[in-house]
Amino acid sequence: MPTALEIARQATLKPIAEIAEDIGIPPWLIEQHGEHVAKIDLKAIEELKDQPKAKYVVVTAITPTPLGEGKTTTTIGLGQAFSHIGRRATIAIRQASMGPTFGIKGGAAGGGYSQAVPFELLNLHLTGDMHAVTAAHNQISAMVDNSLYLGNEFGLDLNQITWKRVLDVNDRALRNIVIGLGAAGDGVPRQAGFDITAASEVMAVLALSKDLKDLRARLGRIVVGYTKQGEPVTAEQLKAAGAAAVIMREALKPNLLQTLENTPVFVHAGPFGNIAHGNSSVVADLIGIHTGEFLVTEAGFGADMGAERFFNIKCRVSGLKPDAAVVVATVRALKSHSGKYKVVAGRPLPEDMLKENPDDVALGAENLRKQLENIRAHGVEPVVAINGMPSDFASERRVIHELAASMGIKSAVGTHFTDGGRGATEIAEAVAEVASKPNNFHFLYPSEATLRQKIEAIASKVYGADGVDYAPLAAKQLDGYEKNGFGNLPVCIAKTQYSLSHDANLKGAPTGFRLPIREARASVGAGFVYLICGDMRTMPGLASKPAAISIDLDDDGNIVGLY
Amino acid sequence: MPTALEIARQATLKPIAEIAEDIGIPPWLIEQHGEHVAKIDLKAIEELKDQPKAKYVVVTAITPTPLGEGKTTTTIGLGQAFSHIGRRATIAIRQASMGPTFGIKGGAAGGGYSQAVPFELLNLHLTGDMHAVTAAHNQISAMVDNSLYLGNEFGLDLNQITWKRVLDVNDRALRNIVIGLGAAGDGVPRQAGFDITAASEVMAVLALSKDLKDLRARLGRIVVGYTKQGEPVTAEQLKAAGAAAVIMREALKPNLLQTLENTPVFVHAGPFGNIAHGNSSVVADLIGIHTGEFLVTEAGFGADMGAERFFNIKCRVSGLKPDAAVVVATVRALKSHSGKYKVVAGRPLPEDMLKENPDDVALGAENLRKQLENIRAHGVEPVVAINGMPSDFASERRVIHELAASMGIKSAVGTHFTDGGRGATEIAEAVAEVASKPNNFHFLYPSEATLRQKIEAIASKVYGADGVDYAPLAAKQLDGYEKNGFGNLPVCIAKTQYSLSHDANLKGAPTGFRLPIREARASVGAGFVYLICGDMRTMPGLASKPAAISIDLDDDGNIVGLY
Repeated sequence: MPTALEIARQATLKPIAEIAEDIGIPPWLIEQHGEHVAKIDLKAIEELKDQPKAKYVVVTAITPTPLGEGKTTTTIGLGQAFSHIGRRATIAIRQASMGPTFGIKGGAAGGGYSQAVPFELLNLHLTGDMHAVTAAHNQISAMVDNSLYLGNEFGLDLNQITWKRVLDVNDRALRNIVIGLGAAGDGVPRQAGFDITAASEVMAVLALSKDLKDLRARLGRIVVGYTKQGEPVTAEQLKAAGAAAVIMREALKPNLLQTLENTPVFVHAGPFGNIAHGNSSVVADLIGIHTGEFLVTEAGFGADMGAERFFNIKCRVSGLKPDAAVVVATVRALKSHSGKYKVVAGRPLPEDMLKENPDDVALGAENLRKQLENIRAHGVEPVVAINGMPSDFASERRVIHELAASMGIKSAVGTHFTDGGRGATEIAEAVAEVASKPNNFHFLYPSEATLRQKIEAIASKVYGADGVDYAPLAAKQLDGYEKNGFGNLPVCIAKTQYSLSHDANLKGAPTGFRLPIREARASVGAGFVYLICGDMRTMPGLASKPAAISIDLDDDGNIVGLY
Repeated sequence: MPTALEIARQATLKPIAEIAEDIGIPPWLIEQHGEHVAKIDLKAIEELKDQPKAKYVVVTAITPTPLGEGKTTTTIGLGQAFSHIGRRATIAIRQASMGPTFGIKGGAAGGGYSQAVPFELLNLHLTGDMHAVTAAHNQISAMVDNSLYLGNEFGLDLNQITWKRVLDVNDRALRNIVIGLGAAGDGVPRQAGFDITAASEVMAVLALSKDLKDLRARLGRIVVGYTKQGEPVTAEQLKAAGAAAVIMREALKPNLLQTLENTPVFVHAGPFGNIAHGNSSVVADLIGIHTGEFLVTEAGFGADMGAERFFNIKCRVSGLKPDAAVVVATVRALKSHSGKYKVVAGRPLPEDMLKENPDDVALGAENLRKQLENIRAHGVEPVVAINGMPSDFASERRVIHELAASMGIKSAVGTHFTDGGRGATEIAEAVAEVASKPNNFHFLYPSEATLRQKIEAIASKVYGADGVDYAPLAAKQLDGYEKNGFGNLPVCIAKTQYSLSHDANLKGAPTGFRLPIREARASVGAGFVYLICGDMRTMPGLASKPAAISIDLDDDGNIVGLY
């Protein structure tokens, strides 16, 4: 099979203005960036509001292996599939981070014959939104250190400055640094560090803002650190929020692209899936919801993570109600959830895993069952999408179908990776049927609950934990947040994506564990409190053979080595 | 008078595709970024080569005061003026850096009624070229530290790593830092630092590359540091150059915009004017030279700096020959060159300077005389453009006209700041006449000369120094460079822009001084060796009241506070 880039280059793309026009976005609301990318004016939210409202479908997954289970590919394949059954869909996904493209994984937005294109733009700068986040974030950082340099007007405690700097590059050497060295004119020495841009709170603000005014207000609410007395100091106090908003002004316009089959796809924002909510932007969905019969949007990692935050953080902001959820499952991941195999990124699957073994699938399918329950816990009905692979056996897939059927849930196999949209028509039919029925969507917890009640609701109802243990630091921080008025925010639990629990080694649907909260952080601008269980890496490193070393231009100036 | 931003917003802009078409650039060579900005495909260099060749005019200046003497404004005013005398011109300028926009000065590309627009785009991300430079530079940096982390295959000496990191923000706290702290997995601890993006060698590479292949090759030649034995280690050896070229691929396409009067203006690249050559891109000029009767391009700072490098670095690369030079002079700056006044950025002029005083102008005009000689030293004929200000007296301007006339040089007053192009028609007439005559353009030194011969040629013939003193470190470095094969590169002397000498306090046309070279650095990728005289700040700080604190969005989402 050809590489993703080769397939992407063979695609026949339509002018993006035509794609926009097809979904009711008139030329005066689009701003072209080349022939195949357009930024959409936020006025489209208002202008399109009388167009029919699409069914809102979130694509999530079982707990993934480090190889990934093809969630973006399925999102795109499903979006493409609707046109094969005579329906019209729009897709919304996150923008890929450039750091990892050169770091480990290479590029991609989907895969095989289910991709968003143009490939080269998607995997590099696109329209510069990531760069705008970097610039806005670091402008605030410079204002923080300038404030220290000028006498620390707001009394920031040097040991409680929570606002770091960011770059969209995998650079482990920037994780822990000391800045402000040199002469007196070179600032105040202190410990600091860089995160990757996707981990910036500005990125989460971009993803969660409803309009420019909301973005400006959220940027002002960003807490950059605390005084020795525990009082928060905000970007507004530093007078840094206006400039940051000006830097982010164009970035808030969602980017419209297309798939290999010319299905419209919004690509906008890319917040981290652990310390942030891992969903594409609210504004893209507010526009996209009036552009077709279905809006297919993706949530990061498994249903316990991205989908839970989709329901409780993103939908709480947007006011949109999901009509159906798709839970992507693979035979190989469910086998690995039997707990008998070790799957490592970048290595071939263990030989034993390739043998026909429906019993292992059945063991591991407990993970699928729990993730399906997690969707239903929000009053939404799921569909199981089996992302079919050549190594699957019919008996193994049958186990999945049977489990779903036993729960009264529809399931279908998709071959969209190799076949494009026509490989996912059964999934699309199932989704269309489920989405046509009314549901009882509700949040897992009310905004008025305490932070601890919210954490405990997620831990017990979604993760299957027996309870929550708070480290003294976390307890103190949570008390402080309640006192500072952040208690009404939703919570985002940063834990491993490789288990329903906090321990990546616990496969399937673990029980009998307590969730340990080591630390809490308040993303007040973005609008959530996040809790750290274990080590959360917010600045990746380069691999020993980084993807970058094979990426180059050929003699004709074409990009090579980017897969 | 309204602010720059207010004037810019009142302008009637043409669709950029129309501007392009007017100068012979067909639609298939432009890539729109919104309605008023386009990137131009580099194929235009080849496609346009049969169009008539424009006269190539470089705009430079006397030694400026910290207030600036309106060189960009004059460049744009002159470009606009040609249409008022029935001729057609294209303009080429550098892109402004975002750091200083929020740091001290606010935004601008020209001023008053001689501006490039759209203002908001120009002063922020434009098409993201600056961000691409940041990303490409830091990708190489991450590869350097990854190489150390993986065992330092190339034997880089931790004390001789010359490749820093960059950000387009004024952030003094990043000047001197220690990176790689933390656990074993967090890299190798070492001293490091950030420069502002404009100071990146990648920026100079962008400005000096003739095409994509040349860019790729130059990126490969970048020296990131040296071994203990003094052997250079390159980006090519690190396998970092291919990825950097891929990141820079779109950025190499010049950006076409327009002035307030719809004159086409290329805005592309913004290398520093001290540690780099301070000129806009070669590719923009290679396209622009076939788009009208005149191509008006700007060189940074005074004629001893930007213009000297324009002649000896940029034209050596591009193969283009200048047909005329414009030396911008102001009455106030020449008064300050009398040595009797102190002009400070951000403060009003000393009262005494506002009184009629042709004698002071005559004293200071020695600076103008020397800068005019500096142009003629390259076989090019200058025109004096007096950037007229309301505080000028006729007697004072007369001194300038008389000096020019005594040298057989044309001079004219421009009021383009208040009047736009029609205020600079006399300058345009003079330029047109001078440019119509053949000249004897030549480099100041041959490529084959030694680095020391090149330095000494500039010091004696351009700066007026009696000789050059090399600090032991600089001498050792120059010896090393000659040994490493960098001796054939042109040189770029990083000194103060506020004096013809290395000492900002020496006004007028100082003599009787020796030029002290403290240190040498090799920008082998960009293709020059630069020499440091005194303190060169490559990362600015924020002011005590940074421009950022007044920059914000109003209730309608418009940018306010950016002047």
